[in-house]
Amino acid sequence: MNNDGTKSANETMHDEQSVGRVFLVGAGPGDPKLLTLRAVECLQSADLVLYDYLTHPDMLAHAAKSAKLVPLGHHRQGRLLTQDEVNRRMVEAAQAGQTVVRLKSGDPTIFGRHGEEVGALREANIPYETVPGVTTATAAASAADVSLTHRDSSSAVAMVTGRRRDDRNPTPLDYDALAAFPGTLVFYMGVSDAPRWTDLLIGSGRNPKSRVTIVQRCSRERQKIDQCRLDEVVDTIERLEIKPPTVFIISSPWETVD
Amino acid sequence: MNNDGTKSANETMHDEQSVGRVFLVGAGPGDPKLLTLRAVECLQSADLVLYDYLTHPDMLAHAAKSAKLVPLGHHRQGRLLTQDEVNRRMVEAAQAGQTVVRLKSGDPTIFGRHGEEVGALREANIPYETVPGVTTATAAASAADVSLTHRDSSSAVAMVTGRRRDDRNPTPLDYDALAAFPGTLVFYMGVSDAPRWTDLLIGSGRNPKSRVTIVQRCSRERQKIDQCRLDEVVDTIERLEIKPPTVFIISSPWETVD
Repeated sequence: MNNDGTKSANETMHDEQSVGRVFLVGAGPGDPKLLTLRAVECLQSADLVLYDYLTHPDMLAHAAKSAKLVPLGHHRQGRLLTQDEVNRRMVEAAQAGQTVVRLKSGDPTIFGRHGEEVGALREANIPYETVPGVTTATAAASAADVSLTHRDSSSAVAMVTGRRRDDRNPTPLDYDALAAFPGTLVFYMGVSDAPRWTDLLIGSGRNPKSRVTIVQRCSRERQKIDQCRLDEVVDTIERLEIKPPTVFIISSPWETVD
Repeated sequence: MNNDGTKSANETMHDEQSVGRVFLVGAGPGDPKLLTLRAVECLQSADLVLYDYLTHPDMLAHAAKSAKLVPLGHHRQGRLLTQDEVNRRMVEAAQAGQTVVRLKSGDPTIFGRHGEEVGALREANIPYETVPGVTTATAAASAADVSLTHRDSSSAVAMVTGRRRDDRNPTPLDYDALAAFPGTLVFYMGVSDAPRWTDLLIGSGRNPKSRVTIVQRCSRERQKIDQCRLDEVVDTIERLEIKPPTVFIISSPWETVD
């Protein structure tokens, strides 16, 4: 403190640094080249990076050598930290003055548990910023050379989770409305529950001959693209041994495959 | 040609370079920091950049000094080139061996006329690559601090154009299905036709008290965020003199404002 009661420049800086901040950063679909420049800046400034399973090492290489890098999942070990633990780690690090990057696959606001993480940060009065990323649907469409909207065939696109309604996903999906959706549907996380969601869509009136584009490991090594009809999705998954991460792009009702 | 009939390294390079290629690149919502690293690489390699109106100069600064930069629209002059002219410019430059970047607002596969540009390139046998970008819906959600999906309230998100059906947008939008859509709706390009689409949504049963988040100039200078109810959108546009570019995020039917 200066004699006149004002703060010196150093003290002001110290005050500003006394609480850190959290960046909720979309990492995009997997290819490290699909990081945004803003995401790179955030990584460069981070003291702590909490990153999803399957994050490419080239993304983490943007972080400073001194940064602590913490994976939230691991091959064959599943989730290493619960959501509550992730929230607590973010809050505690920021309270200790650190800059935290929560690096999230895809875009944080789409199937990213963004609301839960933001809720914890708000409650603890931690400054935060959300950095949008490329969502997997658009990267899959680019890779497979299909358009999600098209002037001749689709004026809208919907992104849906194929996961069964459960504790993590409790809101009802009205399949009558989804089947009637006037455009392209993209199912995220739909491999294991494919028998259910394809049956429900077709049973609710979606054209069984709709063209489905299946993109495995979108933008990652060994990306693989297959096409079939909506009523062939389950067989195709079995036959080609399709595993997550995979997205399914279901064409508008006006585009069909014979 | 070597004596044995094979090509020398130089000739192979020459052959590969004799036809150029086109990159259809998503520029993201507007902020030059939301370009991807891959988009920057493409710009750095470009001989010709065809860019949308309202492209930030900092994006174009990634291009080499020798690159030719051609705007496709201009303030108060509207569209400077028709879609056919854009297609022709891309094809002719690539046929002359140039590397072309078609820099497109948002993501190319969502309301980006991607199908039409790809069709022209395919027809002319021009190699091309689509580079996905951050679509405006997710950037708007990040800026406004709302989640497009949320475990408690929304298992899906749809992106829709608010523009009236016309030559550029001929496929029908079934408002009964949109109103029943079990998640968040994002309307792109919806300012001028707001009286129509809000009436149709409410008339088809969407909750008039749904929370609407209005994001003007998403991620650009003078970005502005407002909220109102679905039945107040038209009044809000008038009162606040809201102009394009603007997106409207309509909450799932389970989130309302009193």
